[in-house]
Amino acid sequence: MISFSILIFLFSLIVSNDGNPLSRSYIHNRMKIIEEENKMAFGSSIGLSPAEELANQCLMKAKFDEVDHGYLHPTEFLPAQNYLEVSKKIKNSVVYQMIRKMPKGGLFHAHISSMLPPEELMKFTYEPNLYICKTKNLVYKFVFSKNPPGKKCDWKLLSAMRKRDPKIDAKIKKSLVLQRSKFEDLNVVWNDFEEIFDTVRGIITYRPVFEKYLRGVLEEVYKDNIMFVEIRSGASQLYELDGRYLDTVKSVEVAFKIVKKFTNEHPDFLGMKMIYSPHRNPSPERLKEIVQTYMQLKAAFSDKIIGFDFVGQEDKLPSLYSVAHVLETFPADTQFFFHAGETNWYGHPSDLNLVDAVLFNTKRIGHGFALPKHPKVMEIVKNKGIAIEINPISNQVLKLVDDLRNHPASEFFANNLPVVVSSDDPSYWDAKSLSSDFYETFVGIMSRSADLRSLKQLALNSITYSGLDDQEKHAAKKIFKTKWKEYMDKLTQSKYCTEINETS
Amino acid sequence: MISFSILIFLFSLIVSNDGNPLSRSYIHNRMKIIEEENKMAFGSSIGLSPAEELANQCLMKAKFDEVDHGYLHPTEFLPAQNYLEVSKKIKNSVVYQMIRKMPKGGLFHAHISSMLPPEELMKFTYEPNLYICKTKNLVYKFVFSKNPPGKKCDWKLLSAMRKRDPKIDAKIKKSLVLQRSKFEDLNVVWNDFEEIFDTVRGIITYRPVFEKYLRGVLEEVYKDNIMFVEIRSGASQLYELDGRYLDTVKSVEVAFKIVKKFTNEHPDFLGMKMIYSPHRNPSPERLKEIVQTYMQLKAAFSDKIIGFDFVGQEDKLPSLYSVAHVLETFPADTQFFFHAGETNWYGHPSDLNLVDAVLFNTKRIGHGFALPKHPKVMEIVKNKGIAIEINPISNQVLKLVDDLRNHPASEFFANNLPVVVSSDDPSYWDAKSLSSDFYETFVGIMSRSADLRSLKQLALNSITYSGLDDQEKHAAKKIFKTKWKEYMDKLTQSKYCTEINETS
Repeated sequence: MISFSILIFLFSLIVSNDGNPLSRSYIHNRMKIIEEENKMAFGSSIGLSPAEELANQCLMKAKFDEVDHGYLHPTEFLPAQNYLEVSKKIKNSVVYQMIRKMPKGGLFHAHISSMLPPEELMKFTYEPNLYICKTKNLVYKFVFSKNPPGKKCDWKLLSAMRKRDPKIDAKIKKSLVLQRSKFEDLNVVWNDFEEIFDTVRGIITYRPVFEKYLRGVLEEVYKDNIMFVEIRSGASQLYELDGRYLDTVKSVEVAFKIVKKFTNEHPDFLGMKMIYSPHRNPSPERLKEIVQTYMQLKAAFSDKIIGFDFVGQEDKLPSLYSVAHVLETFPADTQFFFHAGETNWYGHPSDLNLVDAVLFNTKRIGHGFALPKHPKVMEIVKNKGIAIEINPISNQVLKLVDDLRNHPASEFFANNLPVVVSSDDPSYWDAKSLSSDFYETFVGIMSRSADLRSLKQLALNSITYSGLDDQEKHAAKKIFKTKWKEYMDKLTQSKYCTEINETS
Repeated sequence: MISFSILIFLFSLIVSNDGNPLSRSYIHNRMKIIEEENKMAFGSSIGLSPAEELANQCLMKAKFDEVDHGYLHPTEFLPAQNYLEVSKKIKNSVVYQMIRKMPKGGLFHAHISSMLPPEELMKFTYEPNLYICKTKNLVYKFVFSKNPPGKKCDWKLLSAMRKRDPKIDAKIKKSLVLQRSKFEDLNVVWNDFEEIFDTVRGIITYRPVFEKYLRGVLEEVYKDNIMFVEIRSGASQLYELDGRYLDTVKSVEVAFKIVKKFTNEHPDFLGMKMIYSPHRNPSPERLKEIVQTYMQLKAAFSDKIIGFDFVGQEDKLPSLYSVAHVLETFPADTQFFFHAGETNWYGHPSDLNLVDAVLFNTKRIGHGFALPKHPKVMEIVKNKGIAIEINPISNQVLKLVDDLRNHPASEFFANNLPVVVSSDDPSYWDAKSLSSDFYETFVGIMSRSADLRSLKQLALNSITYSGLDDQEKHAAKKIFKTKWKEYMDKLTQSKYCTEINETS
């Protein structure tokens, strides 16, 4: 079935020569190449029902308006600009608003500590017994404590400080989001980025706050029309007001209890699974501990801990190859979900991580930015159906690529690689869980002609390439089907769409 | 034959795990993927003689020093920074100095008006009878004239103005090179860029100056160890002091006379051929004229006019498809060399030019920046052996890609597409004819492990994919062989290399 937008597109191909005579063979061969590329592309195998066709017309009208305006005025094209500078404009875009309502399936590549918008996080700083200090590097640290914490840092009760410094809230809030003005290069940004983790950690690993935090994350995700989450987490130990730490298994148990409560209240939400993902900078001793912890967690929550990954800046930290001997000691059935190739280098340990990731039968690849430089790995990815979790905004704010039109995922879509869109650390750049990255992908990375079918393919891929078991996948597909139908109605009945239909 | 650098590389792969035990099958499979990718890559089919191995060791030592320093200090990595800011640093690089001496074969993608360094161009402004004016848009215009030119602009004799304004030379020189500070976006840069063309045109289309200019270009190219040039030229009509214009054929004849004199004096220089390349913004009437002019030129200089192309900013100007009916009226044996896909858009007329270029059996593609977004065209390019003329610095200064590590040619090299490196308009960013772009390619775009074989492949490709006839190709290969041997000696006997050998 040929969709409306393809028809429009083919039509434009025929008329844009202003009716000048062209040889039939030329037109035929031209159509052939373009059609073959369309058939090879992401989402092309999906057919649209009449209701979907209607919704698609409306979606594509909005997309063409935006993309074609950008073609004429490239400085105004939002995906070509840094997200930190245009996030408000994106949230006002008609296409964004349509995407916000879309049921997106699962969220795969997101880190547990960077999921709640800064204004929500700020609320927790009003909980009693919160101490604050500023380190030598001018990074805020927090800890909840019954008594004043140790003397390594100049700890003050935040509630007392608020009375003295009326600007403290603004300063704290600023420290929770990456600041564009500070960007010099990738290493500087990564440093700032990791400092935010340090700042946030003290707040959200306090057990009572963590429970509210995770509840907030689930609400946030649910509002973004996400059906389930496969979160990456280092399984940090939670602490109590008296300074005691819960052990790792108990800490994770706290998380899954919150999730269970949430899914009970929201039967159309399928829950959260966890990819145990400690930091990539391990000593030999810590590596042994990590394997042990993974096995403990897997034993305690066998169906919820779906696998293992390392996190951190690949260019600076040990390569997968350098820890391959440890990876070989994981239980044989361990499912890996490796970050790999989150780099713009070529021929260095960080892009060679792609080779090791596929050798360890990674189920998905986090980022895969360097994949086009490794055609053999690309072939394996395609043949084995290894999904690539792209994170466009993350790659942009963390300085891999300035203009998202140059993001390598354009090529993944052209070749129909199994792509899923993720958001990495959305709260650190004040983005929505998935809608912001879906927007950048749909408008900035995919072809102008990529339409509703591509969006649907993204959502379907997030079920196909998930860590859900067969029964859960079946349930997910069923819920998705209903939600998608509702979405089609929402789109076609939206003010924007009804106005188009009235004027056309 | 496995080169020294590959051995070093394979060695590092084995030892970088710090001797930890790894399963044999893992090591075997890892080697297999890496070797397969190496075998697929650009330059991999070339074997190195013992003398070449020696030179390669030295070249790769210099390359590794520079690239590995960049891996640790990314802000200092030159190809990641705008050429206009680091051109001096590049010229001081050991790798650059080695590349400068390299025999590079042919230069393919370069426009006739932007080939001579600004300081050389300045010399012509000291010729008598040169008038200058500043347009409303603050662009300098020049004309040589016996009498004061028309009153449309406030023309002054430059020699007189020099006495009044001691800073005028600095101002003129500045107007001949793109200014980094003015960069806002692609359209602004393109505007500045086209203004330089306007400024230069009045100087270099004055027949007596043109003769010196072209002589200068050939000297410049020859010093950069280029053996022949296939220049893109709009065949501007030259003018005399009394305002008379030579007709197009006569104007081109002037050029080829200069070339003939130069080749007579330099028997190891094979000359210059021309791709007739008018501007891409033609009215229907102008289009007819263009076909006529092409046929006149081809009739007058059959072996020197090798084909046809259009120039100009693809995103803004008519697509190849929109003029396809005219392209179909060219004589059947016309060889096209189309600019295509010099864009970061996807699914727009500018990237679809790639489709039309291959449909018209283009012999080479100028830029092909958008090629990864068109897998079917990429397949045709590979199967038909259509060379891609990449122009890294041009793409960077004209705002397609900021960081050359993200240039799509990395992928072309990974897949051994027939790439040639060109320089587009080197004088407008004060680059050398080819060495500067070879440097960016070798250090910033190719894999860390790409070595002398890749450089040699670039030079050999420039013979294989040239517009030379079989006899000329034979001669070119012979001369290249001698020059390459001399180059190996120069490299191994250089101070840098002898010092390495002494310390190792």
